[in-house]
Amino acid sequence: MSKNYGPEYVRAIAPYQAGKPIAEVAREFGLDEANIVKLASNENPFGVPESAKQAMTAAATELGRYPDANGFDLKAALSKRYDVPADWITLGNGSNDILEIAAHAFVERGQSVVYSQYSFAVYALATQGIGARHIVVPARNYGHDLQAMLAAIEDDTRLVFIANPNNPTGTFLPAAEIEAFLAKVPPHVVVVLDEAYNEFLAPEDQFESALWVKKYPNLLVSRTFSKAYGLAGLRVGFAIAQPALTDLMNRIRQPFNVNSMAQAAAIAALNDKEFLAQSAANNRAGYQQFVEAFEKMGLEYVPSYGNFVLVKVGEDAGAGARVNLALLKQGVIVRPVGNYGLPQWLRISIGLPQENAVLIAALTKALAG
Amino acid sequence: MSKNYGPEYVRAIAPYQAGKPIAEVAREFGLDEANIVKLASNENPFGVPESAKQAMTAAATELGRYPDANGFDLKAALSKRYDVPADWITLGNGSNDILEIAAHAFVERGQSVVYSQYSFAVYALATQGIGARHIVVPARNYGHDLQAMLAAIEDDTRLVFIANPNNPTGTFLPAAEIEAFLAKVPPHVVVVLDEAYNEFLAPEDQFESALWVKKYPNLLVSRTFSKAYGLAGLRVGFAIAQPALTDLMNRIRQPFNVNSMAQAAAIAALNDKEFLAQSAANNRAGYQQFVEAFEKMGLEYVPSYGNFVLVKVGEDAGAGARVNLALLKQGVIVRPVGNYGLPQWLRISIGLPQENAVLIAALTKALAG
Repeated sequence: MSKNYGPEYVRAIAPYQAGKPIAEVAREFGLDEANIVKLASNENPFGVPESAKQAMTAAATELGRYPDANGFDLKAALSKRYDVPADWITLGNGSNDILEIAAHAFVERGQSVVYSQYSFAVYALATQGIGARHIVVPARNYGHDLQAMLAAIEDDTRLVFIANPNNPTGTFLPAAEIEAFLAKVPPHVVVVLDEAYNEFLAPEDQFESALWVKKYPNLLVSRTFSKAYGLAGLRVGFAIAQPALTDLMNRIRQPFNVNSMAQAAAIAALNDKEFLAQSAANNRAGYQQFVEAFEKMGLEYVPSYGNFVLVKVGEDAGAGARVNLALLKQGVIVRPVGNYGLPQWLRISIGLPQENAVLIAALTKALAG
Repeated sequence: MSKNYGPEYVRAIAPYQAGKPIAEVAREFGLDEANIVKLASNENPFGVPESAKQAMTAAATELGRYPDANGFDLKAALSKRYDVPADWITLGNGSNDILEIAAHAFVERGQSVVYSQYSFAVYALATQGIGARHIVVPARNYGHDLQAMLAAIEDDTRLVFIANPNNPTGTFLPAAEIEAFLAKVPPHVVVVLDEAYNEFLAPEDQFESALWVKKYPNLLVSRTFSKAYGLAGLRVGFAIAQPALTDLMNRIRQPFNVNSMAQAAAIAALNDKEFLAQSAANNRAGYQQFVEAFEKMGLEYVPSYGNFVLVKVGEDAGAGARVNLALLKQGVIVRPVGNYGLPQWLRISIGLPQENAVLIAALTKALAG
């Protein structure tokens, strides 16, 4: 009877590396919190929309009560917005929860999960957390190679994760490519289409993926309120899928996974089209600001469809860590991506114009030093 | 290649039945929300403490940011309060999350989990969610039979759940009995001691279970802010265990599982000794109010150490459901416990004196009808 508790596959997990919180960087580097610029976690630089703050204030009196386990009001709002029945919706404690629930609900130990190299770290964690087998498909131009992913599906594959746009690389798959993939995937394989960054897409790239859900019973679309909607601190995401999948998701979902504040704020944010439009506009401008600076600095970057840019800060394997440390000392937090197998790169979130300017100046200094 | 997605053990789960939210009962029975009394979910009738509301207001500006994945400030406060290092603490999205994480972290498919008949429903759900084998030990006087539970442990048992006080029955195990059990459990079996209702215990029944954690490397103590602390709607619980267990818990834990509001509110509530004392005093008085009424009405009840009472409302198998419906029609929400194998009983949460009085009057009418 070993002193090693837990299954071997749990002991082998390397926990998720979150972006350093501002308070932690202030403590570590002896800096004033007010002077720190955080462009590390793809958050919305505008913070929480005013509409959501008002909804939260109204909800605050009822926080001694458990949240509505069925999320009646939020599901009703989402049902209306996406034109799907409420029982096609699963609420999550952020979309991270949706991704984990999907792995638990559709895959058992030893079966396989397909995802792309350089795709979101939680796909690997969710796969490993259930003792499933990873099939990691090499990326093409830092993005998903859907043909190779299709070919990689084996008899025991039960789940495919696709991020669109992808984090941390920012790559994008046009609607036609995804639909061609969906049409060919074996019907017993569940496809999780993770669209956390969807709302930052230009109108011409947008596609209402809920329409695919109506066509493909094995498709689950995952969305979040943590990015364009500005509610990262509240934790709310959701999935849309036909009842056969949604019913299983809800068997694994913790009944009170989405807190009351988050439910109230999400309804308000969903209806706040103006905030969403401002966020997208700020993001487009900030992307141009970064791209122009990176080109001027001669830095390679991956064209991004999200609210962040992956930029190469050196040729040697330690470049990302070294430049990251130099930025931290200047009070600028970004995301090193060595854990993604990209040790020469940094992922930089798009902030407000003045935050972007601070990053550009600090990066220039870091690279010069 | 079946059209049945997901593992068989997931398809077999019967989802958790949450208490009906006030809004749902109002919709279903055509009632005014303001006239509904909810004594169904063992919530704190005082709601959120004022101290926590103030902390939440201060935290509200930062909700566009992800929560601190490591919960630095809350863990520091808990570390001080329980005199254990911060790396002995795991934060959970309510203690429900702690219970689920423990099952995932310590047990693999096919291994067994031991828990008591009539104990908290989430033990069964967490066990089934990972495809583990249930060893359900018959209760003794509606509570845990620790000797029988010890004898029930098999070679492949990896986890034992103990609720103290137990929900939904309210039974209590004195410290000496639990320690005798801990001393005999095989060291490779993790014991989860779920103390969600601990803060309602009379001072003479209290025992600082963190002291046991220092002695037993296989013990994990689970607590929540949802009950006496009044934060059910915010979702925050925590576990205390030695680093070998805590490290595995944190590999399974979703990085942003506890939202920023919950972290801030929990710190304030933890330090609000006055609120806790008021909650406990109201609970003692309400318990007496119920007990006197039930005795006058000639109803059998299980003596309770929690903030609820299990009461027998009839002799036939449909009694609980029938009386529950009669209460709902009068705008009073309690918890039927047929799903616990107690179809003749109702679990009634202790509310404010006037809420308790409404319940007593409505129950009298329901039983007469």
